[in-house]
Amino acid sequence: MFEPGVVHRRIERTAPEVAGALASFGSATVHEAMGRVGLMKPYMRPVYAGAQVSGTAVTVLLQPGDNWMLHVAAEQIQPGDIVVAAVTSECSDGYFGDLLATSFKARGARALVIDAGVRDVRTLTQMEFPVWSRYISARGTIKATPGSVNVPVVCAGALVSPGDVIVADDDGVVCVPRGMAKAALEAAAAREANEAAKREKLASGVLGLDMYGMREPLAKAGLRYVD
Amino acid sequence: MFEPGVVHRRIERTAPEVAGALASFGSATVHEAMGRVGLMKPYMRPVYAGAQVSGTAVTVLLQPGDNWMLHVAAEQIQPGDIVVAAVTSECSDGYFGDLLATSFKARGARALVIDAGVRDVRTLTQMEFPVWSRYISARGTIKATPGSVNVPVVCAGALVSPGDVIVADDDGVVCVPRGMAKAALEAAAAREANEAAKREKLASGVLGLDMYGMREPLAKAGLRYVD
Amino acid sequence: MFEPGVVHRRIERTAPEVAGALASFGSATVHEAMGRVGLMKPYMRPVYAGAQVSGTAVTVLLQPGDNWMLHVAAEQIQPGDIVVAAVTSECSDGYFGDLLATSFKARGARALVIDAGVRDVRTLTQMEFPVWSRYISARGTIKATPGSVNVPVVCAGALVSPGDVIVADDDGVVCVPRGMAKAALEAAAAREANEAAKREKLASGVLGLDMYGMREPLAKAGLRYVD
Amino acid sequence: MFEPGVVHRRIERTAPEVAGALASFGSATVHEAMGRVGLMKPYMRPVYAGAQVSGTAVTVLLQPGDNWMLHVAAEQIQPGDIVVAAVTSECSDGYFGDLLATSFKARGARALVIDAGVRDVRTLTQMEFPVWSRYISARGTIKATPGSVNVPVVCAGALVSPGDVIVADDDGVVCVPRGMAKAALEAAAAREANEAAKREKLASGVLGLDMYGMREPLAKAGLRYVD
Amino acid sequence: MFEPGVVHRRIERTAPEVAGALASFGSATVHEAMGRVGLMKPYMRPVYAGAQVSGTAVTVLLQPGDNWMLHVAAEQIQPGDIVVAAVTSECSDGYFGDLLATSFKARGARALVIDAGVRDVRTLTQMEFPVWSRYISARGTIKATPGSVNVPVVCAGALVSPGDVIVADDDGVVCVPRGMAKAALEAAAAREANEAAKREKLASGVLGLDMYGMREPLAKAGLRYVD
Amino acid sequence: MFEPGVVHRRIERTAPEVAGALASFGSATVHEAMGRVGLMKPYMRPVYAGAQVSGTAVTVLLQPGDNWMLHVAAEQIQPGDIVVAAVTSECSDGYFGDLLATSFKARGARALVIDAGVRDVRTLTQMEFPVWSRYISARGTIKATPGSVNVPVVCAGALVSPGDVIVADDDGVVCVPRGMAKAALEAAAAREANEAAKREKLASGVLGLDMYGMREPLAKAGLRYVD
Repeated sequence: MFEPGVVHRRIERTAPEVAGALASFGSATVHEAMGRVGLMKPYMRPVYAGAQVSGTAVTVLLQPGDNWMLHVAAEQIQPGDIVVAAVTSECSDGYFGDLLATSFKARGARALVIDAGVRDVRTLTQMEFPVWSRYISARGTIKATPGSVNVPVVCAGALVSPGDVIVADDDGVVCVPRGMAKAALEAAAAREANEAAKREKLASGVLGLDMYGMREPLAKAGLRYVD
Repeated sequence: MFEPGVVHRRIERTAPEVAGALASFGSATVHEAMGRVGLMKPYMRPVYAGAQVSGTAVTVLLQPGDNWMLHVAAEQIQPGDIVVAAVTSECSDGYFGDLLATSFKARGARALVIDAGVRDVRTLTQMEFPVWSRYISARGTIKATPGSVNVPVVCAGALVSPGDVIVADDDGVVCVPRGMAKAALEAAAAREANEAAKREKLASGVLGLDMYGMREPLAKAGLRYVD
Repeated sequence: MFEPGVVHRRIERTAPEVAGALASFGSATVHEAMGRVGLMKPYMRPVYAGAQVSGTAVTVLLQPGDNWMLHVAAEQIQPGDIVVAAVTSECSDGYFGDLLATSFKARGARALVIDAGVRDVRTLTQMEFPVWSRYISARGTIKATPGSVNVPVVCAGALVSPGDVIVADDDGVVCVPRGMAKAALEAAAAREANEAAKREKLASGVLGLDMYGMREPLAKAGLRYVD
Repeated sequence: MFEPGVVHRRIERTAPEVAGALASFGSATVHEAMGRVGLMKPYMRPVYAGAQVSGTAVTVLLQPGDNWMLHVAAEQIQPGDIVVAAVTSECSDGYFGDLLATSFKARGARALVIDAGVRDVRTLTQMEFPVWSRYISARGTIKATPGSVNVPVVCAGALVSPGDVIVADDDGVVCVPRGMAKAALEAAAAREANEAAKREKLASGVLGLDMYGMREPLAKAGLRYVD
Repeated sequence: MFEPGVVHRRIERTAPEVAGALASFGSATVHEAMGRVGLMKPYMRPVYAGAQVSGTAVTVLLQPGDNWMLHVAAEQIQPGDIVVAAVTSECSDGYFGDLLATSFKARGARALVIDAGVRDVRTLTQMEFPVWSRYISARGTIKATPGSVNVPVVCAGALVSPGDVIVADDDGVVCVPRGMAKAALEAAAAREANEAAKREKLASGVLGLDMYGMREPLAKAGLRYVD
Repeated sequence: MFEPGVVHRRIERTAPEVAGALASFGSATVHEAMGRVGLMKPYMRPVYAGAQVSGTAVTVLLQPGDNWMLHVAAEQIQPGDIVVAAVTSECSDGYFGDLLATSFKARGARALVIDAGVRDVRTLTQMEFPVWSRYISARGTIKATPGSVNVPVVCAGALVSPGDVIVADDDGVVCVPRGMAKAALEAAAAREANEAAKREKLASGVLGLDMYGMREPLAKAGLRYVD
């Protein structure tokens, strides 16, 4: 049977230069580059606007209303990690606040992604510790039942394994499996390489219809113009 | 039967001086001035706070997960237009991002109102291209099935015909039918004319109960005071 | 039977020095200090970020789509009060805007907490009149049916009696019953007293596991480490 | 401006033999036959399972928490009609119960479709008066503010004009515009004509892949089989 | 401070003949009779259709994901009681199933009303033990943290004190405060007394417009008829 | 990168005698027996009440508004399978109706579990083909973009790999990983073995407090009784 209460201390992290480089492309480009998989549900929102990060996942499986395992996870954080927390059932409580943020930051964590609630959001904003969460709630949690650290989790609809890369910004949160990370980085870079030229053309008034050659396929698909 | 895949190139737009002048009153005043019709559902939220716009509607009917018609709509945009996009079924995908925003802006569009998701919201904010949407999502869309442009659409619960006026700000989005626009503008101006005096009175401590003469109707309606 | 349309003019307010002092601790700390009761649902969100207030509750029970009683409530406001408004059934309409805010502010109100919608949010932000609400909506309300003022209400899941203390910030809204307020203040101060030391330790890299002595109870609860 | 409080006594109803004949095809087939337009949001659910009806729309625009216009609408009902009720803002109250159902039934109404709440659902079930609604709620409504009868309304995301055909069953509610009704009936009949043969083939184990000739287009679209 | 973990063994129950007699009127009539207060949110739904009960409230305050106090509550049940359970934060877990239902039934409980989830719903239906809940979920709960029994609770938006009367049916759940119960019973009986005559009139085709004398007030309110 | 459009024809199914035997225990017992993992979100509801099934998973990853892959999946069904369908983004459309149900049934499928919408629910009920879905919707889908068959999917928050066991009933849907299935079956049988005795005791009036020995741990946890 499933054994809760397990902490995996050794995980294989994606190479830090790959994990770190994905941030600059943002969640939308990386999601496209991967073939449109790994995106968390759009209810995951940043606590404050403007942060854009990437890093290697340390995963946590929490019990409802119980944040004990976030303290356990803190010890497993290495610089460059992003903690990804799922709960075994839906819970809006505030699992994470300024003290845990101080601890995570001291350990080198770059962000928290949690399919539940957080609190102390004003302080988190001042500390510039970025958090993506489903809820904001002042309600605290207990420390009574173990969960697990560094097991595969489903967070906001996405499967995240320890060591995968997390890319998060104002558009959402995407998980890049470790085995795909290098290729995703290359594909993202390739995508972005020709975006500048496209942007310039569109800014000059050229239509996407012409730039992408859409007129013919649209006509074939039956599009009619009426005056 | 209903024929999808139609683009109406000729639409009758509300006069630009009327369409443009409604912005300064804001959605709440215009909605009141019209007799409280035409408001979109309150789930439509601005991507960034502070924008307040009005303009003539170019409408788009999209398929779920397919943004092809936004490219088709771009060509129909004239300066002063606001693109209003509905989807044939609920979809949270990010139909619109920085490249389409660049194109829309180059064509003279003032804003996008979309009953679905958008992405690249940080860039949209930096570009100051205002967007009201239901969702924010990094997930992109395909280009496979035609919809329509410049047909009447139901967007977030409001019926919008091409050429109607859209007024949008931090309070929401309202559609003013073309035939009502001039009268709505006058009614809005009339409403606002005496707001300054009211505000001053209230600021000085006069009660609405007295300023609006509510004490008698409240007593008639049965209101009792208990000490 | 229940008699709607009653305004209680005399209510027993929590002492102002207690009511006012709770603000500095914030909703999360006060909620903890009280034994984790009195928190409103997390769907109550501030209209703008950054406000942190406390004050004595003037309560209002509103009818759906009808804000008449907010005008009645204005007269009952004393400096230091926070108006807490519940509706007899769910309603997203914009019950409150800049004129009522001007009036409430002139009467000395510190904030509004409403389990419904508000509008004119840009102006509210500029006026720095803090509001916590469930919805933002441009749609106005009528003035047709009396409700009540200064009766106990259930607002966003929390029971609020007139004169109770409301504490609100970016994390949410908590109600401190009058009889508990002094003790809550003391408990909150006690909680906060040793937070600075903890924060410093955590910032230096000490783990919560060690600082809180969690290793033994975790082992007892069955937590296992795997390499 | 928009004038509320209007009752249109004369409306052009779809021919009864057309309106009535659509019921037997059900909402899904009719929706397909029309080109996939006119479907209400899937939150509209039948109060009891198994009813399948069609009829001509008498429309009602209600105020939040106020069912006065349902009484006004009763007088406009003719045998074969279905009452379609929208509310000017979202409201979960129980606008309709056994007394109104008795009245509607006596007038010849076939059903009610309402984007709000209803009550007395056990009695409605016993009476076999079918209702599709968004909510069920014991909370009653007032009679204070006029709305309108037989104006075009947006109900659960679909535009309904008086005299249009409504088709409703366990799958949902679809509106067939009057001008499309005859063609929709023919298209629905044509669709259904060859369903029996298809069903038999599929029941015998023939695959849709073969029956619909999908293998080649799937291969072209890039589908690969891996053993 | 608030002390969790308290069980009040002595509560003042509404007289059983009053508490029991309210069932026959149903939640909608009782809610009206009381002046429209005390209704729980419409998300509270019966696990199976057709049950209609009333009884005296034994209240329970549960922790998220923890059903320990339902076992404690079982001992406090007397014949004719209905258990009303609230949770300190939102939780969809299945707190209650066939074993607890067997125990509650043996103790004389008439029903359970719970602002959370339940499971074993097929067995509950077969046992004919009526339950109103927010969720149905197979996920069980732990027994780790005490809550309270027979303290006032806010359940699905309604304040319920121990000994109050609960009336529940397919339309929802209403709480009648003990002090109001006798008057509510009389008012409900009075309401129902003249319903039969009204129903007969309406069934014969008389319009509510005439029966209730609405034509004049509608005209005064501005209703216009257009041919 | 991720390659969509792949159909894995060979999957390792859980042994049929194990997969089939789990049905009789139901989702709640199996979920407990597994250590409380693998449960889908409680929004997954049966189309009709009373079905209780288990079988081996054939998984499908669908595109929004596109049911092409359900036809592809049909060919991969073996007697005893349950089709589990996820969509790459949220979609309420009706992906599945009576024709596909006829085909699935002919292939030996026991049920469909789909994190999207279905239609023809009256026919599905008559056919007794059980379906668990998030939505019911008359709106059909297109056949334009390949997804995948028999890849691991996240369905309603649960990770499902091809060949895992699905157990579904009125309480919800649980996924038992293939490697856990035999142990889960034994644990479920063990759980159920002593339930009959417990049920009898509780039915006779014995309290859970005594039967489970809860009085002492409750007292230790601080529970107090007040008369």
